[in-house]
Amino acid sequence: MFLKDQIKTIKKNDPALHSNWEIFLYPSFKVQVYYKIAHVLYNRKFYFLARYLSERAKRKTGIEIHPGAKIGKCLFIDHGTGVVIGETTVIKDYVVLHHGVTLGGTGKNIGKRHPTIEDHVMIGCGAKILGNITIGKFSKVGANAVVLNDVEENATIVGIPGKVIRHK
Amino acid sequence: MFLKDQIKTIKKNDPALHSNWEIFLYPSFKVQVYYKIAHVLYNRKFYFLARYLSERAKRKTGIEIHPGAKIGKCLFIDHGTGVVIGETTVIKDYVVLHHGVTLGGTGKNIGKRHPTIEDHVMIGCGAKILGNITIGKFSKVGANAVVLNDVEENATIVGIPGKVIRHK
Amino acid sequence: MFLKDQIKTIKKNDPALHSNWEIFLYPSFKVQVYYKIAHVLYNRKFYFLARYLSERAKRKTGIEIHPGAKIGKCLFIDHGTGVVIGETTVIKDYVVLHHGVTLGGTGKNIGKRHPTIEDHVMIGCGAKILGNITIGKFSKVGANAVVLNDVEENATIVGIPGKVIRHK
Repeated sequence: MFLKDQIKTIKKNDPALHSNWEIFLYPSFKVQVYYKIAHVLYNRKFYFLARYLSERAKRKTGIEIHPGAKIGKCLFIDHGTGVVIGETTVIKDYVVLHHGVTLGGTGKNIGKRHPTIEDHVMIGCGAKILGNITIGKFSKVGANAVVLNDVEENATIVGIPGKVIRHK
Repeated sequence: MFLKDQIKTIKKNDPALHSNWEIFLYPSFKVQVYYKIAHVLYNRKFYFLARYLSERAKRKTGIEIHPGAKIGKCLFIDHGTGVVIGETTVIKDYVVLHHGVTLGGTGKNIGKRHPTIEDHVMIGCGAKILGNITIGKFSKVGANAVVLNDVEENATIVGIPGKVIRHK
Repeated sequence: MFLKDQIKTIKKNDPALHSNWEIFLYPSFKVQVYYKIAHVLYNRKFYFLARYLSERAKRKTGIEIHPGAKIGKCLFIDHGTGVVIGETTVIKDYVVLHHGVTLGGTGKNIGKRHPTIEDHVMIGCGAKILGNITIGKFSKVGANAVVLNDVEENATIVGIPGKVIRHK
């Protein structure tokens, strides 16, 4: 269940949480409720309404998820201001994004032009993942990194342009 | 005409656009409507009111344009959250800014202390352009780059501090 | 007095200020009024209410200050969108933060897991200061820098990861 999953996810990821009720204050939770409705509308081709909800959610949370994006379970977006998730992004399960993360395009691709983020990936604050690339399972992207190429599983990637500094 | 120009500009720059009506949802469009009014008030020395409108626009769009900035035609600001445009900035025509871009000061200049952005420049998400410098026509600035010096025309500049990696 | 200090601080730091009344428009001022109330509530263990105020302030200003953070006098946050200040952060006096600055955690510490910022530090836009580290007095951190280790007094630090480029 979405609500249970979200409570578990926030508990696991945020040591600043003091009580379960605080979950309703989390932008990560709010924006995903909006997204779920907007995504259904988008799939039924109500593009304007879907986009309206997405913009409204962005005003309230600072997080912009295009209604066309595909998002798995237990996503956690910490703080959230400045997060942008593009139309053809795919996010698998148990992903953690920090504030200021962009899953965006480069303007060079047509069709699928945004990244695919595999299970258990963690992306640090301010990092930009650009283009139709894949970040492999359990990989970590450092703060303010700029990633323009595929990243293998279990890698840690930092800097501009992003370089692998560790590999388990 | 401003409205026609904006429709054309958004159509050209955003492949995620599904219908003309969506244009009224774009922060880029909204913030420029506010800016136009605030800029007139600023020029007539109604500084408080001008600043009030600019802060209000920022709350609604995430984009902060100082009412004193000078902006040409067909500016497009993609997504927009976190964009800051300083008081003495000059933006020429057909410029594209992504979210998180700062056109700011370094605290070292007096008078004109913010950048000049020439025609057709594209600035990637999270890039900071600081000081009274000029970014030449058709140049591109990469995501999260920090630019502190003038950039020639047709250059591509990335990293911290920004370095030219390509020149047509 | 808080109000007098704030007027002095904003006057000193923002050359774009045209009149004293504009101070009430500054996100830096607004968010600190909210923070002061939230911090009192937090210390009396009204965690939910404290967090609610902090989230509300974030929606209105773009600045997220956890109610548990400890903040000294004459803090100035320029522009502010995207600023995140974590629960166990300590900010001393006369600090200047620009928009997009994160004083956050790395996920590796327990207890005090956010930075300590000494007097007169200036942190540039988009910089991320992560972990239980100390930035020494009068030091400056450049735009988009990522700092993961202690910084001495009077240093200037830039890049990813942050390197000292100047030392008075």
